[in-house]
Amino acid sequence: MTPTRTNSPVLVVGTGLLGSSVGLGLRRLGVDVLLADASPVALGLAADYGAGRIAPAASHKTAAPEDTPRIVVVCVPPDVAGEVVVAQLENWPDAIVTDVTSVKSAPLEHVRETGADLSRYVGSHPMAGRETGGPLAGRADLFTGRPWVVASHEETTVFGLQEVEGLALDLGSNVVSMTAEDHDDAVALISHVPQLLSTAMAERLLDDVKDASALAGGGLRDVTRIAASDPTLWSQILAANGPRVARILRRLAEDVVDLAGALEDMEKPGARRKVAEHMLAGNEGVARIPGKHGSRRTFTNVTVMIDDRPGQLARLFVEIGEAGINVEELDLEHSPGANIGLATIAVLPEVRQKLLDELDARGWKVAQ
Amino acid sequence: MTPTRTNSPVLVVGTGLLGSSVGLGLRRLGVDVLLADASPVALGLAADYGAGRIAPAASHKTAAPEDTPRIVVVCVPPDVAGEVVVAQLENWPDAIVTDVTSVKSAPLEHVRETGADLSRYVGSHPMAGRETGGPLAGRADLFTGRPWVVASHEETTVFGLQEVEGLALDLGSNVVSMTAEDHDDAVALISHVPQLLSTAMAERLLDDVKDASALAGGGLRDVTRIAASDPTLWSQILAANGPRVARILRRLAEDVVDLAGALEDMEKPGARRKVAEHMLAGNEGVARIPGKHGSRRTFTNVTVMIDDRPGQLARLFVEIGEAGINVEELDLEHSPGANIGLATIAVLPEVRQKLLDELDARGWKVAQ
Repeated sequence: MTPTRTNSPVLVVGTGLLGSSVGLGLRRLGVDVLLADASPVALGLAADYGAGRIAPAASHKTAAPEDTPRIVVVCVPPDVAGEVVVAQLENWPDAIVTDVTSVKSAPLEHVRETGADLSRYVGSHPMAGRETGGPLAGRADLFTGRPWVVASHEETTVFGLQEVEGLALDLGSNVVSMTAEDHDDAVALISHVPQLLSTAMAERLLDDVKDASALAGGGLRDVTRIAASDPTLWSQILAANGPRVARILRRLAEDVVDLAGALEDMEKPGARRKVAEHMLAGNEGVARIPGKHGSRRTFTNVTVMIDDRPGQLARLFVEIGEAGINVEELDLEHSPGANIGLATIAVLPEVRQKLLDELDARGWKVAQ
Repeated sequence: MTPTRTNSPVLVVGTGLLGSSVGLGLRRLGVDVLLADASPVALGLAADYGAGRIAPAASHKTAAPEDTPRIVVVCVPPDVAGEVVVAQLENWPDAIVTDVTSVKSAPLEHVRETGADLSRYVGSHPMAGRETGGPLAGRADLFTGRPWVVASHEETTVFGLQEVEGLALDLGSNVVSMTAEDHDDAVALISHVPQLLSTAMAERLLDDVKDASALAGGGLRDVTRIAASDPTLWSQILAANGPRVARILRRLAEDVVDLAGALEDMEKPGARRKVAEHMLAGNEGVARIPGKHGSRRTFTNVTVMIDDRPGQLARLFVEIGEAGINVEELDLEHSPGANIGLATIAVLPEVRQKLLDELDARGWKVAQ
């Protein structure tokens, strides 16, 4: 195997949402992508869709050199990921093999137990997805700007790690290095427990005999959105990470019961304080989630009142530009009935005062 | 009192998010709106913002006829709503009084206990809100297309009901009639329990020693979004609906513990089936939530790629302004490593093509 990343193809095994997206993203870069799938229908769709070409051979024994992958990306459901990884390690004795399933300890253990060549397997997990599945749900930019966990282990070679990290970087992801165990702890907390909570909340709506759901606002919709997720896929994911998820669920149930106890009699001493303390802890917890770009850069907001006319917004930006201040993020809102609009401008904290001074000098009104 | 809905003013007591929005919405229809608030700062801001004029008199004893409201809308925090309703019933002996707080049994009981004129009080609850508060968060279209519960009771007169329903309809809401008890059961399920679940999930993130939150995807963000809600306000809301909320929380905790039991050993007979059954019930539950109520915003988005430099954004807005196109909403995003930013501009559908043509003619690159 030559350690050049451009000559030999990448083989994608499994052409659902993730496999199709990997293929589309690599094709956009001009990489030769081979596709394989147990379902001829999915395979044909993915190829037609532009995710790559159908792999002419299933193993090195019959493959021409130009059809021999340097890296195999296994994008199959969690309950078969381990065995497909082992099969691919055998089929392609010179290739690095990775998988993209959402648990990392179970497939690693499976590969270790079968005695396959662990030095060529590096598990990974792109933290990206969509609510819909299948090859046609694939997007070339699905991974852009998203974290991609690469879970190296004791037998991982530098070359193997570079190949998998290179794949993630080529697809626009930010590489995050973690052990399989740390990864599985992390996803239990940030993915698997939220899924089951959303499910449990939605399940309560089945008791709704008075059609209260018709009044649902954004809060309930947000909390229950992922309750629509696929039970088959999720049973597989959860089966591979059960004890970690169960531990967090039990702690969470304790908090819920604690809240219920306080709410049963809010005149009890300390009951109101207990509810407020949980709410405050929730405020602190949610603040730990970084901003939407995965950046923890802390911008500061300045809200400017503007007349709701086309020229005003332009004048505001011309004047901010003249002051040499870069606007990091911007949110413009106005209500049809109001006399003014509100432009919320996010800037680096160190230029906040300068911005306030410049706005003031030019007669802009800052809200609050 | 004459049963015409157009001549006498509407008095809004409390000029936070809801009061300010009621005022803005009615002003847009040309209704004379009087504003009152215990805080002179909030009151002044709301009046400046266009939500109405400051009420010259606090009761019928000193008010001129043109400053005497036909309907009083109490928009104060839940823990003082009952007493403010009673005070307003006394201040304006010919007016219908409603309140917009998110629990309805407690204020009704309060009015009944004080012996005030219950025939002129009709509680109501617009199912609308935003994460931010204060007068400047107000929006004239906050209630458009949203349900507005009107909770009549035994003493409610037809005229009183018509006044409050008319207010809700004027503000673009869909009127939903419910008893105070049914309303409070409904909001326990669709608002108060989701709030506390979101809080409980976010609270778990405080145990996150390995910075898993940095990997957070859309699921966790959705589930925890409302965990950022105001603890003071929510303690008041929950205090007025505690036992109903507690009952649902306890059933929910049972489901969570049941799931934890299954997940602790997924090889146990029936464990996988149990998880799948909960997931399926969640699928069914979430399907009970109707689609988005009459989309409040019918703007169309155009995403423009811009160089991430101060002058570029200004140039974009100057040129959009020159084209005579009004920007309704705007979202600017860029990821720290990228060379380009994305400005997503919301415009009315009828000017979309013109905007695209103008952007194209001036050399701007539109994404997709």
